[in-house]
Amino acid sequence: MDITNANRAQVLVQALPYIQKYAGKTVVVKYGGNAMVNEDLKDAVMSDIVLMQLVGINVVLVHGGGPEISGMLKKIGKESRFVDGLRVTDAETVDVVQMVLAGKVNKDLVQLLERHNGRAIGLCGLDGGMIKAKKLAAQEDLGFVGEITQVNTDIISHATANGYVPIVATVAGGENGEVYNINADIAAARIAAEMGALKLILMTDIKGLLADKDDENTLIPVVNVSDVPKLQNQGIISGGMIPKIDCCVEAVRRGVSRAHIIDGRIPHSILIELFSDEGIGTMFC
Amino acid sequence: MDITNANRAQVLVQALPYIQKYAGKTVVVKYGGNAMVNEDLKDAVMSDIVLMQLVGINVVLVHGGGPEISGMLKKIGKESRFVDGLRVTDAETVDVVQMVLAGKVNKDLVQLLERHNGRAIGLCGLDGGMIKAKKLAAQEDLGFVGEITQVNTDIISHATANGYVPIVATVAGGENGEVYNINADIAAARIAAEMGALKLILMTDIKGLLADKDDENTLIPVVNVSDVPKLQNQGIISGGMIPKIDCCVEAVRRGVSRAHIIDGRIPHSILIELFSDEGIGTMFC
Amino acid sequence: MDITNANRAQVLVQALPYIQKYAGKTVVVKYGGNAMVNEDLKDAVMSDIVLMQLVGINVVLVHGGGPEISGMLKKIGKESRFVDGLRVTDAETVDVVQMVLAGKVNKDLVQLLERHNGRAIGLCGLDGGMIKAKKLAAQEDLGFVGEITQVNTDIISHATANGYVPIVATVAGGENGEVYNINADIAAARIAAEMGALKLILMTDIKGLLADKDDENTLIPVVNVSDVPKLQNQGIISGGMIPKIDCCVEAVRRGVSRAHIIDGRIPHSILIELFSDEGIGTMFC
Amino acid sequence: MDITNANRAQVLVQALPYIQKYAGKTVVVKYGGNAMVNEDLKDAVMSDIVLMQLVGINVVLVHGGGPEISGMLKKIGKESRFVDGLRVTDAETVDVVQMVLAGKVNKDLVQLLERHNGRAIGLCGLDGGMIKAKKLAAQEDLGFVGEITQVNTDIISHATANGYVPIVATVAGGENGEVYNINADIAAARIAAEMGALKLILMTDIKGLLADKDDENTLIPVVNVSDVPKLQNQGIISGGMIPKIDCCVEAVRRGVSRAHIIDGRIPHSILIELFSDEGIGTMFC
Amino acid sequence: MDITNANRAQVLVQALPYIQKYAGKTVVVKYGGNAMVNEDLKDAVMSDIVLMQLVGINVVLVHGGGPEISGMLKKIGKESRFVDGLRVTDAETVDVVQMVLAGKVNKDLVQLLERHNGRAIGLCGLDGGMIKAKKLAAQEDLGFVGEITQVNTDIISHATANGYVPIVATVAGGENGEVYNINADIAAARIAAEMGALKLILMTDIKGLLADKDDENTLIPVVNVSDVPKLQNQGIISGGMIPKIDCCVEAVRRGVSRAHIIDGRIPHSILIELFSDEGIGTMFC
Amino acid sequence: MDITNANRAQVLVQALPYIQKYAGKTVVVKYGGNAMVNEDLKDAVMSDIVLMQLVGINVVLVHGGGPEISGMLKKIGKESRFVDGLRVTDAETVDVVQMVLAGKVNKDLVQLLERHNGRAIGLCGLDGGMIKAKKLAAQEDLGFVGEITQVNTDIISHATANGYVPIVATVAGGENGEVYNINADIAAARIAAEMGALKLILMTDIKGLLADKDDENTLIPVVNVSDVPKLQNQGIISGGMIPKIDCCVEAVRRGVSRAHIIDGRIPHSILIELFSDEGIGTMFC
Repeated sequence: MDITNANRAQVLVQALPYIQKYAGKTVVVKYGGNAMVNEDLKDAVMSDIVLMQLVGINVVLVHGGGPEISGMLKKIGKESRFVDGLRVTDAETVDVVQMVLAGKVNKDLVQLLERHNGRAIGLCGLDGGMIKAKKLAAQEDLGFVGEITQVNTDIISHATANGYVPIVATVAGGENGEVYNINADIAAARIAAEMGALKLILMTDIKGLLADKDDENTLIPVVNVSDVPKLQNQGIISGGMIPKIDCCVEAVRRGVSRAHIIDGRIPHSILIELFSDEGIGTMFC
Repeated sequence: MDITNANRAQVLVQALPYIQKYAGKTVVVKYGGNAMVNEDLKDAVMSDIVLMQLVGINVVLVHGGGPEISGMLKKIGKESRFVDGLRVTDAETVDVVQMVLAGKVNKDLVQLLERHNGRAIGLCGLDGGMIKAKKLAAQEDLGFVGEITQVNTDIISHATANGYVPIVATVAGGENGEVYNINADIAAARIAAEMGALKLILMTDIKGLLADKDDENTLIPVVNVSDVPKLQNQGIISGGMIPKIDCCVEAVRRGVSRAHIIDGRIPHSILIELFSDEGIGTMFC
Repeated sequence: MDITNANRAQVLVQALPYIQKYAGKTVVVKYGGNAMVNEDLKDAVMSDIVLMQLVGINVVLVHGGGPEISGMLKKIGKESRFVDGLRVTDAETVDVVQMVLAGKVNKDLVQLLERHNGRAIGLCGLDGGMIKAKKLAAQEDLGFVGEITQVNTDIISHATANGYVPIVATVAGGENGEVYNINADIAAARIAAEMGALKLILMTDIKGLLADKDDENTLIPVVNVSDVPKLQNQGIISGGMIPKIDCCVEAVRRGVSRAHIIDGRIPHSILIELFSDEGIGTMFC
Repeated sequence: MDITNANRAQVLVQALPYIQKYAGKTVVVKYGGNAMVNEDLKDAVMSDIVLMQLVGINVVLVHGGGPEISGMLKKIGKESRFVDGLRVTDAETVDVVQMVLAGKVNKDLVQLLERHNGRAIGLCGLDGGMIKAKKLAAQEDLGFVGEITQVNTDIISHATANGYVPIVATVAGGENGEVYNINADIAAARIAAEMGALKLILMTDIKGLLADKDDENTLIPVVNVSDVPKLQNQGIISGGMIPKIDCCVEAVRRGVSRAHIIDGRIPHSILIELFSDEGIGTMFC
Repeated sequence: MDITNANRAQVLVQALPYIQKYAGKTVVVKYGGNAMVNEDLKDAVMSDIVLMQLVGINVVLVHGGGPEISGMLKKIGKESRFVDGLRVTDAETVDVVQMVLAGKVNKDLVQLLERHNGRAIGLCGLDGGMIKAKKLAAQEDLGFVGEITQVNTDIISHATANGYVPIVATVAGGENGEVYNINADIAAARIAAEMGALKLILMTDIKGLLADKDDENTLIPVVNVSDVPKLQNQGIISGGMIPKIDCCVEAVRRGVSRAHIIDGRIPHSILIELFSDEGIGTMFC
Repeated sequence: MDITNANRAQVLVQALPYIQKYAGKTVVVKYGGNAMVNEDLKDAVMSDIVLMQLVGINVVLVHGGGPEISGMLKKIGKESRFVDGLRVTDAETVDVVQMVLAGKVNKDLVQLLERHNGRAIGLCGLDGGMIKAKKLAAQEDLGFVGEITQVNTDIISHATANGYVPIVATVAGGENGEVYNINADIAAARIAAEMGALKLILMTDIKGLLADKDDENTLIPVVNVSDVPKLQNQGIISGGMIPKIDCCVEAVRRGVSRAHIIDGRIPHSILIELFSDEGIGTMFC
């Protein structure tokens, strides 16, 4: 479709009330899935971030990097093993996790955002003592998989105050100098809560929460967190959705106004979520 | 045309480089003509102003109000008389000019912008001693038609620094406490120059400068101010265009980067000018 | 009387404790009556305002303009009609009210204060959404006579913080973009209350509250607001005094330390009130 | 003479242009002579200082204390000896000078100003390393009589910025920790120069510079510093006047706009100088 | 002992946790005794103060000057007389006290600290109205011996905020302009309390509180203020110790974290107290 | 050796003049060699850094990580190859370089400093667009070995202003989004120059520049950069020393006051250099 200048102006003007609503507020985006793999989607996300920053939103980008970790482990001849979706992480593995997340994925994103004329700073949970963790209690020993014990977002606030988009890799420091691998969804939720964010946005590879998981036309656009247990009993929330939705519930419970599960496969899904009434995906409030 | 959310996002992202270019810069808009009469156009202009303010542009709105003045004069049984396009302004008339411009047109615009969720402040050349003037030298005595002698934009800068859009009615104070009626195009140009504005935008009821004044398809999109004399000799610049283009030339000569004559009859013509490569109307640089 | 330099110095030194008491405090002056008509009195008031500003008082000047409105209405062939002292205000009238108050009286005062080397800014209730109003409930339909619903003095605070004396014309905006004529005494009282002013000063054409209204030697210099009902019962407060004194009571009840009714016919009555122990007129506390 | 409230107001208003002229400027007053002895004059000077501070003048008070020093020396059985008007100052004497000036005269003035509701801080040339000196070269050994080598007014600026009137006793530190007695007129001139003061005011016990030193009606109100040598040749400037006038000339040469020799025996002579057109005493410019 | 560079580095590094603990905190030191007489000890104290300031501690130095006062009184032929350790202070004496403390001892300390590259300002209780006092109630009339009625440490806070070490002589102003001699220990305790100091350090000529006052090996390093009455009953706290320990108790009761009685005869006793675990002298908490 | 508290105090006091000299200044430390391998040395360096920060020095820590890179390359079965001391860096290698430097070595140092109670932030040349590079011109193709084209230390200044020690891994961004491996000595020198640092300190595994490279007793403590060519001709500067000394020369030429080559094998060598007169290693000035 050809967009005329008149349409352009109309769209910008329609964005007005949203810009007014979000200016000066904090939005934490958990970046992941296809949107972090496909080059066009990556460019689209970077544009979205830069635009958000320009209209006065404090954006924080939190990311994982499972595929890159697995790739590197394979290179050094190490098989990835998972228990209940969690990577079994021995000492050698956690070193690779840290290297790949904080050194490769994170800094590549920094460079990409800078190339889109954004200003970015690459941080991990070790910088400024941002995230503290302890060994996650689990039936099987998962090694250096961590559970967050403390979040201090001072370093993030300093970064946004100085005009940088903080990009956060979720490794955390333990009490005795060991490093833990932290689930990025959970870290994003905790950071959002700590910063009193207006929104937490989890980018996924699904359309959102579906009433019938086999029918994409049954998207549930809004869920009140108090209805989550019921939906879980009904089997509507199930499988891989459970931990993601738990993050949303947790964030809302800790004071984040809205938490969203959106479809990162759609270009500019973040902007669509922010700048339209109907939004995209499923919103928890 | 129906605009999809995908289009919306695309438009917003395409606006990015323009927003980055204008953020923190000053744009002075001379508001007038049809865009100040037609209710839909008025709403569109107000939206444009609010959007500009939100993305970090310091907008200054300068306005005239010829028709409203003539209307009021008629009400008190006074005929409007013009010499070379200038209103002959006796003492009673200049009182009406001041009342209508600074009290009615100006404050109505303030209210309209506030109703669009903007924050506005209505000023005239008397406030903070902003514009000083003396009697315009002319063959025939025009009364209280003034020529600017001094411009002090401190009060405008204070207003923008505090988050208000200054809306300026162009009456000015004389040395002995008399008040002068000032041409709004000229005042806008001088304010733009004084503030080191990036752009001066004159809203008119024509498409711009036409190579053949009878053919709207002959728009000249860009004019270098050094070519203006030649264009005048060729008769391309003539009639009512001369003073407007003089303002543009003057503004550019005093350091304004770009001066524009745009077609205020087109909705959102300001946004189109600011947020597209081809712009709209004629640009002087 | 010839004042020697020694007397001069003595007077300045005697003003010291008053200056110390008022520095940094807000004083709202309702300007009106003879003091706004007689040229010498006007000059005296302007000097008083500039002096107050210089010694560190945040002065806010609120004004009406009944005679000027009536004059303009007459010019357009419209009779002024009053019910219980309130002007019946149809749509055409409220336009004239706005024009005359915000465009003529207000900006003339701005110019006058600037000519006395003050720095002034002319505002009305529409600027920055300062005063919101609704139709005043009354037995007879009074048209666009408004009752204040909300006062936001941010724009006044910004003005004083930037070194300007805000001069306020009391027209206000309604919910649907209509404009209301607001009683200036009431507006002054509300602004004083909103700003936590130290003093509200109402300039009138009477000496103050008299025990015997026919004997100017019976001035009551101080009234405790709790005694007002009794004085009203005794008939000492009556007629045109009632609404003015209601304003004073209201202001004091809302936290203004002192409210004064002073005689604007005496030159420099404001200074005399501020800088002498005995003051002038009647003080409500 | 009885001063009416009307006169009071008139005086205050007439002070306006002077207040506007001096606000934010620095005035250094050398305090001495009768005005430092007579209790009524002392009170008058303190009032003047507090008033100056209140209307926004940065006042610096520099003082000597010859009589108090002589009195204390006498108490310890030590004769004061002078050579060319300079006190011969042995080690024991300089200790007394420091004690009396910095500990008694200075702090008594601080207390007196505080009791007039001013805020004062008592400093000497040792505080913050304000004044550095070396032994004054002279034919006869004068002991610890110093010549200023360096002035650093940071500590004075900090004091005024925090709202205190700095009161300065003129003892200074030498290179090896010794202390010097410094002429207060010279120190005042140097401090005024260093601070870019608008005025230096030397309070004396004479009317000013007289054309005929025996006739008080021959006061010369204004002297251009370039005319000083000629006046000296004519014998009009002679005797004890020479060093005082040298201070004035020096101050003006180093950038102080105006230097004044005023008659401290007249109550409020400082205010009269500041707040009248004709001033008082002799002005050097 | 010869200290190698390696030892040097080790010492500096061991000081780290103490520096971190004290940075930005206030420490009030009462300076007196031998440490104020012996030249080497004086130099050592000055070094300690400058170091404390450099590592970010807000140091306030409060001093007495009994021996210097007695010396000066003797010079003017006046005998010092004491009742219960308090100097009987007639009008002539209090003048000497003020001169010697605020003019000599205080300013000499300022100069000494400046010569150690510190930045100092010499204040007394009169400056900025810091200490207000009334006549101390006592059985025998002690004259101008004062009891503190009010402490306002604004002037001290301004000094430290501007980078100066405030050095305070403890004379205070009375209600009618009289001056009182104030006990320096008590003044230091009150200033420490008023400023919410972390520590009050009283420099004395004893080792601290001894279990057996004749055996220096019986030092009691830590005393809980609640145990003081018991220690007094046991006779362990007795004689000249009582008022000093009362100061410590008072300071702790008013919110000072720790109060110390240290042995000023040991070089750098302040640093040893601050920068070692075992500290020095007796700590009250 | 047992260090007494008296010695401790003496050392601290002797550090005073150095602390005064360095407070508020920038010192860039290139960290490397044994001091980055031996655990005790690492702890000592971290203590030194924290102490420097506490006494007001802006420390910037720049590091390499050659051994860690080689180790990781070996793990993925890739041989390290060097030409003239430069690692041949293909696309796969530069990924490993980035991961190891920015993700492992850098963040491990951040964690270590935080564990010593410092506040650290881990940056690389990509963050905030800090270092831009292009392919190093060389006879043999070295792949992604870069030459610095631009250094922007804004992000470093923001970090120090917010109280963090910036730790910098020296990978840089190219024009087309590629990443380059940058020599850490050179990067440190350029950052020091850009920041107007007082000192550049290169930590090495040698004693400094030796007159006779086989005799450690022939250390040359100070070299004027103008003498470097002569020393090179004499063969005193040779081999691996050449590039390090070139860095020092370059830094001094670009305005760094002093550049040092120090022996990182000695514990606390940085403190010894900073806090002793004789310093350590070789100083270039």
